[in-house]
Amino acid sequence: MTAEIISGKQLASDIRGELKQEVESLKAKGITPGLAVILVGEDPASQSYVRAKEKACAEIGIYSDDNKLPSDISEEKLLSLIEEKNSDPSIHGILVQLPLPKHIDEAKVLLAVNPDKDVDGFHPVNVGKLVVGQKAFLPCTPHGIVQMIKRAGVKLEGANVVIVGRSNIVGKPLANILMQKSELGNATVTVCHTRTKDISKHTIEADIVVAATGLPNSVTADMVKDGAVVIDVGVNRVPDDTKKKGYRLIGDVDFDAVSRKASFITPVPGGVGPMTITMLLYNTVDSAKTANNIK
Amino acid sequence: MTAEIISGKQLASDIRGELKQEVESLKAKGITPGLAVILVGEDPASQSYVRAKEKACAEIGIYSDDNKLPSDISEEKLLSLIEEKNSDPSIHGILVQLPLPKHIDEAKVLLAVNPDKDVDGFHPVNVGKLVVGQKAFLPCTPHGIVQMIKRAGVKLEGANVVIVGRSNIVGKPLANILMQKSELGNATVTVCHTRTKDISKHTIEADIVVAATGLPNSVTADMVKDGAVVIDVGVNRVPDDTKKKGYRLIGDVDFDAVSRKASFITPVPGGVGPMTITMLLYNTVDSAKTANNIK
Repeated sequence: MTAEIISGKQLASDIRGELKQEVESLKAKGITPGLAVILVGEDPASQSYVRAKEKACAEIGIYSDDNKLPSDISEEKLLSLIEEKNSDPSIHGILVQLPLPKHIDEAKVLLAVNPDKDVDGFHPVNVGKLVVGQKAFLPCTPHGIVQMIKRAGVKLEGANVVIVGRSNIVGKPLANILMQKSELGNATVTVCHTRTKDISKHTIEADIVVAATGLPNSVTADMVKDGAVVIDVGVNRVPDDTKKKGYRLIGDVDFDAVSRKASFITPVPGGVGPMTITMLLYNTVDSAKTANNIK
Repeated sequence: MTAEIISGKQLASDIRGELKQEVESLKAKGITPGLAVILVGEDPASQSYVRAKEKACAEIGIYSDDNKLPSDISEEKLLSLIEEKNSDPSIHGILVQLPLPKHIDEAKVLLAVNPDKDVDGFHPVNVGKLVVGQKAFLPCTPHGIVQMIKRAGVKLEGANVVIVGRSNIVGKPLANILMQKSELGNATVTVCHTRTKDISKHTIEADIVVAATGLPNSVTADMVKDGAVVIDVGVNRVPDDTKKKGYRLIGDVDFDAVSRKASFITPVPGGVGPMTITMLLYNTVDSAKTANNIK
């Protein structure tokens, strides 16, 4: 079997096309969705993420409100900027780029974001609502993963899903989305991690394997059954002299070998990555609609 | 193999003894932990639960503030009572007995409880904090289950735990506690439910099975492996003419057969039930300590 590639790039482009139309129809009603992007310091990776997010906003017509702050900004000043954005009616989403400098309490900052503008879905009240099945912003990476699976035509209901990795931004929220009694859920979910006795014993039985370990080639062909759906969340840099940058990106899955066994697989790059930003745009448009009582 | 019985009754009594001493030492500092119990209407089961909770408070010296409201009370009045308890410094925990009458929005009421007094652990912000690994009140039934497993000397780290049932008060929060990187977690957790293709395929591999289906005898001996630890969360009434009340209580597990295969098993009654109220007392004492900066 040779796996069909689920192109996150293509899917993201399709969804962004749909969102662009939605934004146009909102603008016709006098509403421009607005996203405040807050970046503290000059970490190159964070700068690059923020640029990508702002570019994506521009493409579909979301107003992006750019806030670049020095790395030595006080927690108090950061919190007062968030307070300002919380009460600004032109802003429907607030994104605080992580990580924050060490002198700032990250949990406190995330708690300060108005949950109704928490388009990252990281505020505990949104995480809690997700768990108990209330309407909430879904965190972007897990939401992107679920959309990729669904739009590839793979059935979630009754599927055995094994997630490898229990981070707050991928593994744990994804498990909670997939176990819900909902159209994005109804799967039987297992979460494996560093303390799991024998990860392959679980993955080999899975209809869908989600690799979010942060380790290259940590999901290998002998760990997945024939015909499995394999989602690769990893983004790892490996040295590569043939590239201008001196490295290339690979995922957590041994792509070549696994793609000969799986039925569907996501590539890296061009898989989960582009979907993450897209779901941020989706949440921002959704928030603008909710704020204006539009369904 | 004949399973060792984990007596929730005995364990609850031990923990209540510990809590009673803590309350005494708090009282010596001039602090009396207070729990506001709010009961709307006259549902006999709810009345009986509330009585049991108030009796348990009295036993260990917690002040219980009794609020019985008519079933036709308006949502507004209920919310204003909660507001009053939220700001009353003599109250450290607020318990709203569920279910509420249909004209009242349950989710809205639970959201109105100050998260710092949400000793039931049902407020989304507490659920969310639990998921992301921040300090939060743990919901009472799952917390009681974890304590039973730990105090029986069963190792959670690396254990394969299969939870059958995905309710908001048991299955989902328990899964989230057990998958944390913490001393109450580090287990590999699978959540099964009505849409799971073959529940026994999962349970037969489990080191620990938690039955929370709400259906008598839904976990049978052929579904568990030799030496498994079996926790029975069910409370089901079955007609029994030999009893004064005309019924007896049984769990979700086929106790007789499963207890011949398991290494540990919890009985019904006298298992998870007494632990649930005990963890409510625990959370109330904990809240009183936190409110007074006592560790």
